[in-house]
Amino acid sequence: MQDTKIIQFASDNYVGAHPDIAATIMASLESTEIPYGSDSYSKMAKTEFQKHFKQDCEIFFVGTGTAANVVALKSVLRSFEAVICTDIAHINTAEGGALENFIGAKIFTTPTHATDGKLTVSNLKQAFLNFRTSHFNKPKAVSITQSTELGTVYTCQEIKDICDFAHANGLIVHMDGARIANAAAFLNKTFKEMVVDTGIDILSFGATKNGAIMAEAIVVFNKHLALDMPYIQKQSMQLFSKMRFIPAQFIPYFKNNLWLNNAINANEKSYYIAKELKSTKLFKILNKVETNQIFIELPTKLKDELAKNYLFYITNENFEKNTCTIRIITSFNTSDTDVQKLVADFKQAEYNFLLSHSS
Amino acid sequence: MQDTKIIQFASDNYVGAHPDIAATIMASLESTEIPYGSDSYSKMAKTEFQKHFKQDCEIFFVGTGTAANVVALKSVLRSFEAVICTDIAHINTAEGGALENFIGAKIFTTPTHATDGKLTVSNLKQAFLNFRTSHFNKPKAVSITQSTELGTVYTCQEIKDICDFAHANGLIVHMDGARIANAAAFLNKTFKEMVVDTGIDILSFGATKNGAIMAEAIVVFNKHLALDMPYIQKQSMQLFSKMRFIPAQFIPYFKNNLWLNNAINANEKSYYIAKELKSTKLFKILNKVETNQIFIELPTKLKDELAKNYLFYITNENFEKNTCTIRIITSFNTSDTDVQKLVADFKQAEYNFLLSHSS
Amino acid sequence: MQDTKIIQFASDNYVGAHPDIAATIMASLESTEIPYGSDSYSKMAKTEFQKHFKQDCEIFFVGTGTAANVVALKSVLRSFEAVICTDIAHINTAEGGALENFIGAKIFTTPTHATDGKLTVSNLKQAFLNFRTSHFNKPKAVSITQSTELGTVYTCQEIKDICDFAHANGLIVHMDGARIANAAAFLNKTFKEMVVDTGIDILSFGATKNGAIMAEAIVVFNKHLALDMPYIQKQSMQLFSKMRFIPAQFIPYFKNNLWLNNAINANEKSYYIAKELKSTKLFKILNKVETNQIFIELPTKLKDELAKNYLFYITNENFEKNTCTIRIITSFNTSDTDVQKLVADFKQAEYNFLLSHSS
Amino acid sequence: MQDTKIIQFASDNYVGAHPDIAATIMASLESTEIPYGSDSYSKMAKTEFQKHFKQDCEIFFVGTGTAANVVALKSVLRSFEAVICTDIAHINTAEGGALENFIGAKIFTTPTHATDGKLTVSNLKQAFLNFRTSHFNKPKAVSITQSTELGTVYTCQEIKDICDFAHANGLIVHMDGARIANAAAFLNKTFKEMVVDTGIDILSFGATKNGAIMAEAIVVFNKHLALDMPYIQKQSMQLFSKMRFIPAQFIPYFKNNLWLNNAINANEKSYYIAKELKSTKLFKILNKVETNQIFIELPTKLKDELAKNYLFYITNENFEKNTCTIRIITSFNTSDTDVQKLVADFKQAEYNFLLSHSS
Repeated sequence: MQDTKIIQFASDNYVGAHPDIAATIMASLESTEIPYGSDSYSKMAKTEFQKHFKQDCEIFFVGTGTAANVVALKSVLRSFEAVICTDIAHINTAEGGALENFIGAKIFTTPTHATDGKLTVSNLKQAFLNFRTSHFNKPKAVSITQSTELGTVYTCQEIKDICDFAHANGLIVHMDGARIANAAAFLNKTFKEMVVDTGIDILSFGATKNGAIMAEAIVVFNKHLALDMPYIQKQSMQLFSKMRFIPAQFIPYFKNNLWLNNAINANEKSYYIAKELKSTKLFKILNKVETNQIFIELPTKLKDELAKNYLFYITNENFEKNTCTIRIITSFNTSDTDVQKLVADFKQAEYNFLLSHSS
Repeated sequence: MQDTKIIQFASDNYVGAHPDIAATIMASLESTEIPYGSDSYSKMAKTEFQKHFKQDCEIFFVGTGTAANVVALKSVLRSFEAVICTDIAHINTAEGGALENFIGAKIFTTPTHATDGKLTVSNLKQAFLNFRTSHFNKPKAVSITQSTELGTVYTCQEIKDICDFAHANGLIVHMDGARIANAAAFLNKTFKEMVVDTGIDILSFGATKNGAIMAEAIVVFNKHLALDMPYIQKQSMQLFSKMRFIPAQFIPYFKNNLWLNNAINANEKSYYIAKELKSTKLFKILNKVETNQIFIELPTKLKDELAKNYLFYITNENFEKNTCTIRIITSFNTSDTDVQKLVADFKQAEYNFLLSHSS
Repeated sequence: MQDTKIIQFASDNYVGAHPDIAATIMASLESTEIPYGSDSYSKMAKTEFQKHFKQDCEIFFVGTGTAANVVALKSVLRSFEAVICTDIAHINTAEGGALENFIGAKIFTTPTHATDGKLTVSNLKQAFLNFRTSHFNKPKAVSITQSTELGTVYTCQEIKDICDFAHANGLIVHMDGARIANAAAFLNKTFKEMVVDTGIDILSFGATKNGAIMAEAIVVFNKHLALDMPYIQKQSMQLFSKMRFIPAQFIPYFKNNLWLNNAINANEKSYYIAKELKSTKLFKILNKVETNQIFIELPTKLKDELAKNYLFYITNENFEKNTCTIRIITSFNTSDTDVQKLVADFKQAEYNFLLSHSS
Repeated sequence: MQDTKIIQFASDNYVGAHPDIAATIMASLESTEIPYGSDSYSKMAKTEFQKHFKQDCEIFFVGTGTAANVVALKSVLRSFEAVICTDIAHINTAEGGALENFIGAKIFTTPTHATDGKLTVSNLKQAFLNFRTSHFNKPKAVSITQSTELGTVYTCQEIKDICDFAHANGLIVHMDGARIANAAAFLNKTFKEMVVDTGIDILSFGATKNGAIMAEAIVVFNKHLALDMPYIQKQSMQLFSKMRFIPAQFIPYFKNNLWLNNAINANEKSYYIAKELKSTKLFKILNKVETNQIFIELPTKLKDELAKNYLFYITNENFEKNTCTIRIITSFNTSDTDVQKLVADFKQAEYNFLLSHSS
């Protein structure tokens, strides 16, 4: 980061790797390994996954969250089929049309107004029933994001209800777990309880945003979907020759609950900010703060002031009301000092703003 | 590698990263950086590329050689167009159909029998002239591999002749440089002389096989091709959030001629093996050994004996003559001891084989 | 139609071809012609198009409305780009995902609640401004349907405003003219006034629903888009060898205003129905009836009664209010008798329904 | 055809429709029918197909031979799979890359030198065995053309041998039957004997080149492949609304052996030409003339002379020997007079040529 005065709360992908993960990466770089995923790190990492999920799941390592989602769904969808998800799902809004181009399939979206960013069974049912002739793509998959793009978390029961409806209607269920650790930490559930026991068929398991680097895994529970995955992985340009670099990271990630401790830290830093800003006049916190994302509505001019010292995303602008929404994200290594300073600076800026607009 | 007794000459992607590269990776892991390629390492690496190629080339970092080729060609080709290359080109034989699926375009191949794996202007011309109506895809690009899939090297003049014919006929020229350093080392030319001065429009620059890890770059000289590349990179699932990991490696790679020293070592180890085996009775070296690949025809039974202690690829089997072809590849860190042992063991095996078949 | 008692108002693609068109088809079947669009009928038909549109437009004949739209947009869009249209646009809802699979691109939709099915400049602007980074597809085209999927008609000024905004922002404008004749008849405008003078770049011109059979044309005004069309047409499986069958139909279609007379008949039959049903208690006509489509909300039980003798589409069902929406479509050969009978039968059914529910 | 002095032997898609077929087309144009393939003609035509093939085959009507092949293979192949065929297969050489773009899959070709244009089991086996890792596409289908692109015909035993090898190795067999009637006529076999009894899974059945117009059908014997075909047909832009036009043609085509009589006429006209030219000095007939295609090698200057009065395709030119190959095709309505004149004119031209070159 060039300008070191700027404090970043823009995303959990600005920070580097946790030291334990960096150490394993280094070790993996020195060794000679069979390429294309037959290395010893891949084997060890798979064992870790199977401990935390299910004995017979299959694992494929890829380099980005977009790849994890699109490769996973390619194992499910043919081009004339469709996946149902919310209109704010990352696969729909922020993956550069990778799904449409790589799979050829279509995304059917459901509205998320007033549902905290979650897909409901009722919305799923309506989308499913809307498409019943060959003039439409054939609904074949459902995709939910845990934790959601708004930082909220599906309960295990909500996931199970979606899986039950889906399976009763011939649909496969995919979970986009780019921030899955944060959800598990919030729910205080194991991955097995949250993913396997609820009925998820295939999972994009992200570690990059929680202290790893370029480390994503596709976890397949419905083994039928794993059959052609080696071909799909190669065709998707995600079969790395010196693959060991990715699986190596998952070994410390699962050992000693690193994944959980990282997620807890990120979550709690957001809870702190949300709690502190709750009592202010101008910072309106949208949605429940359940993980490490906070969406705040505030006057645009106040935002301009804050942006001089803080880096965050602007997710919406209302030009009529002169307000906007910003997204604050905390990370595995966000410190108490960081968030205390943010709260103090935000409150001071609000005070100044009120003062200057009070006459 | 589980079985440490086996000595690997299977590929230059078995070995890890050079220590200088590993050191920069570590540094990059500790820093906080803007994601998606706006990090400080990307900027520094681009400057290095521009020093070695051309001031105004544009650079995009990706994670695999397949991705470098397919993303580069996506900037050139629409689905109804075609790329002309040899029948043994990596894009045609070993990329899982990624080009066809990601671009939708077609590959027109020329035969490489008796041409040492190189595309000739004569073959290119014939392929180009064959396709002149809209019932075929429209030829739009040429792709050549330097060094080739058979380890041979195009001279600068040969590259220039191909570029000249191509440009005169409206074709864009792509170079697959998965092993480009080995070619430059053999020719004793700079990258600028070999790539820019000959007229290449777009280059896949590979470092993974020469001491880096998951580190490939697309170098764009024809700036028109760079315009939409950010969209293509995202859609191809090659836009890594913590991107810094890849460009970081190119900084030491270019500094102090690491790329060249690595390539020279790999090449010279192959030259040594080729020279030593030349005088044998049963090891027939196919093609010129110009870089770090050696293709050897030998009796299948002799191959079986060698395979007990050495790892190499079998690229062809002739069931009638009971012979086969193996590929030996040397790497940036292959040692004198390694190749001296290989030569001694191969000669001893040949001696034993002759003895047992002499009665 | 097996059950001749059923009277169809389901769609304008149930009826056959107008006799004048059938006659030209027959003549074309007897002749020997150069295949793949170099036939004499193609030449004559192109001249007719140029008379009605613009001297130098280019014409390509295809077999379905879906093909006309998707092939036209393929000339505009690369896979990482997007087209903006309404959420009810035929390309989004009823083309089997052909656009996504054939082009790989994405469709960005705008809501049509309270806009009578039309895209507004305001909605277009908002959709365009929402997508400004390479994490999204790049907006490149706008597509509007004239007459719309709800039977309404854009005024020339509305079309021009959309084109002006689009062109000022680097967007190409496509018009889906599956029912374009009905719109021109309603507006009392020539094709040139409605399409060329307003700034449309490329048009899907449908004749199938207005008395022809499998006869659609792509009319290209922005000549840059025509350059690669022969390749696109072939790759899209729309280059018919005995092509003459399609262009032959357009010759009588344009001569003697057949297109206009057919459209006027279809429109006026719908106007009659709408006028007659306006005064009823239970048939609620949704949207303005400007062309040959009428959307009627009515009690589901009344619909069930009508469905015994009439064929129509049910486009919506409200299970809570026990109402539904049906679509009535009139055709080039719908007669006064047909619609008088429909009105009488519908009114009688309403009377019976009211009677039986009045106690 | 503008220049009526030119006599065309260029292709069997220059001529129009047989009068019996034209008559049924006309009848179909007058009727009102349910769209999208639920019309009464589709039902009647399907019954005819089932009579000639097998009771429970399923039929889908499309508009071009390219569409028949690509839609059929889409039901078999996923994008990471491949079809094996000869290097001269129409799907490889003359379909504008439709397979690659619409399916995303790859075509593995086998050489046809000295095999009369046929795929041999030996070549098939070698291609199949060459591709055994996920770095290649996965072989999933075989496609053979009957009669072949060189006019030759597979015997029933040859077809059965290919099917047996394919099925034993998990491959589906597709037949491109663009000129299937000509093959059946040559073999004097029923469609059932030639296609069903030999084990073909899915067939592109062409009638366009044998007296119909835009009339192709996909015949599915392996019912698993028919399950999603309605979706594929829609997505491929081959679901015509006024579909009746295509199936209507198959009713007279199958009745009274029209298909057979048409094919016999076309074949016999070619046999006559081949027989008459056999004894000449300069016309060298390549391949066996088994159907309605004749490939003739001749001096380029003699070809230039003939081209003044005859239309034919030039399929090869040898600039060193000053020879070329032309393709002569006869049609369902080629007359005795036509071919007698051709033979006389060709012989006279040869005589003149010899005379002028004899001094």
